[in-house]
Amino acid sequence: MAEPKRRVLVTGAEGTIGTAVREHLADRYELRALTKEPADFPSHAADIADLEAILPAFAGVDAVVHLAASPAVETPWEEILPNNLVGTYNVFEAARRAGVGRVVFASSNHAIGGYELDGAPGLYALDDPRVYDHTVVVRPDSLYGVSKVYGEALGRLYADRDGIAVVCLRIGAVRAGDDPTAPEVLASSPALLNLATEEVRRQRMRAVWLSRRDCAELIGRALDADIRWAVVYGISNNPRQFWDLSHAREVLGYEPRDAAPV
Amino acid sequence: MAEPKRRVLVTGAEGTIGTAVREHLADRYELRALTKEPADFPSHAADIADLEAILPAFAGVDAVVHLAASPAVETPWEEILPNNLVGTYNVFEAARRAGVGRVVFASSNHAIGGYELDGAPGLYALDDPRVYDHTVVVRPDSLYGVSKVYGEALGRLYADRDGIAVVCLRIGAVRAGDDPTAPEVLASSPALLNLATEEVRRQRMRAVWLSRRDCAELIGRALDADIRWAVVYGISNNPRQFWDLSHAREVLGYEPRDAAPV
Repeated sequence: MAEPKRRVLVTGAEGTIGTAVREHLADRYELRALTKEPADFPSHAADIADLEAILPAFAGVDAVVHLAASPAVETPWEEILPNNLVGTYNVFEAARRAGVGRVVFASSNHAIGGYELDGAPGLYALDDPRVYDHTVVVRPDSLYGVSKVYGEALGRLYADRDGIAVVCLRIGAVRAGDDPTAPEVLASSPALLNLATEEVRRQRMRAVWLSRRDCAELIGRALDADIRWAVVYGISNNPRQFWDLSHAREVLGYEPRDAAPV
Repeated sequence: MAEPKRRVLVTGAEGTIGTAVREHLADRYELRALTKEPADFPSHAADIADLEAILPAFAGVDAVVHLAASPAVETPWEEILPNNLVGTYNVFEAARRAGVGRVVFASSNHAIGGYELDGAPGLYALDDPRVYDHTVVVRPDSLYGVSKVYGEALGRLYADRDGIAVVCLRIGAVRAGDDPTAPEVLASSPALLNLATEEVRRQRMRAVWLSRRDCAELIGRALDADIRWAVVYGISNNPRQFWDLSHAREVLGYEPRDAAPV
């Protein structure tokens, strides 16, 4: 008899990455969905800013993939506070109370985006040797990035204190259109004004692109790996790279199948 | 003619460290106070959780020493959220809006307290060689510690994005009684249960003690140093040490005058 599939709750299941997870991982796990509003698929609808309201969705769950958040780098404080700060605490706390053994947290490269202030646009060039790994000192480029540093710190606490396995994925650029040749759209971020030309924005996208199926694969590896704590970057096997992928390969066995063009 | 003293706003001026600042630095700066409640000294009384209410205290100020927070390692989420998370955002944001050039942020060793889970109690021994410096990956031991990781990340953003000079002090143990021989009182912290015996608690205190005048001196150095960003530890010149002091000496010129007994 085959082992029963593990029950995995996906928060923000209606979002860009949540949709990729539902497309690519439904055969490997018994997926459950938490969405802010009622969805056109089976879902527990509740706002993650409300701990009591989301708790029932965590009952009987083996692992959580926490994607729900305001995803824009430019998100103002008034939305970061409920959606990213309070919400992420509520998700970790609900997981603890429900006895969930693992949380995969969608962190972001913007937790260390400040380094691009020094390095860009040369950093995006094909032959630039600089690589930032999971041990660099955090350096957010936005309130959104601050919220991801905070979420990783919360995760470390729940791993150390409560024994929950926590894997934080500093995800690159996952797009609904899945197109690595589209220009990056971060030009309005105050910290990334060096994305001044369309060519630079296209170069950055080719460096940070994470295909939808590679993203789902990375999340699957994070759900399966025999590990209690990790922070890794998530990009496809792009010729241009300035974030380290070796740690994700080593500790998760992540093997991207896609690659942006040169 | 002597230069006019710089105007320095101290948030949490009524607290343990705020009192040390008022005792030791009133001759070097024109100190202004922000306190939660009306105080028995001149003060702007307002809750840092209310941005509009604290803004007037920042007008015309050259620098801010941000001490206001729930200071106990055991502080529950319901107090961490307004006092440490919202409050610290409000202080940085008020400083930015008022054109304040510098913020000294009272961070804490608890931003990396998780390492004590691995290292203690041997870590507190006189001959233990381990030292954690400002480049180690953050690892909070509590929600309080998470709030300090978050505050440092906010500080880095305001330094990078807005050009505010930010110095984060990972302060050891400053006590009203200023007694380095008293046992550490953190035994109720879930992450520090290895402080099991009174002797271990006394050893830790002798390693992490920061005298009141050394604390004020460290804050003064952070106000004066020609630097835009730094994270340093703050302890006295204790024979037992497991946090690095060399970076504080190098970048701030900090020179502690006191030392706990062996």
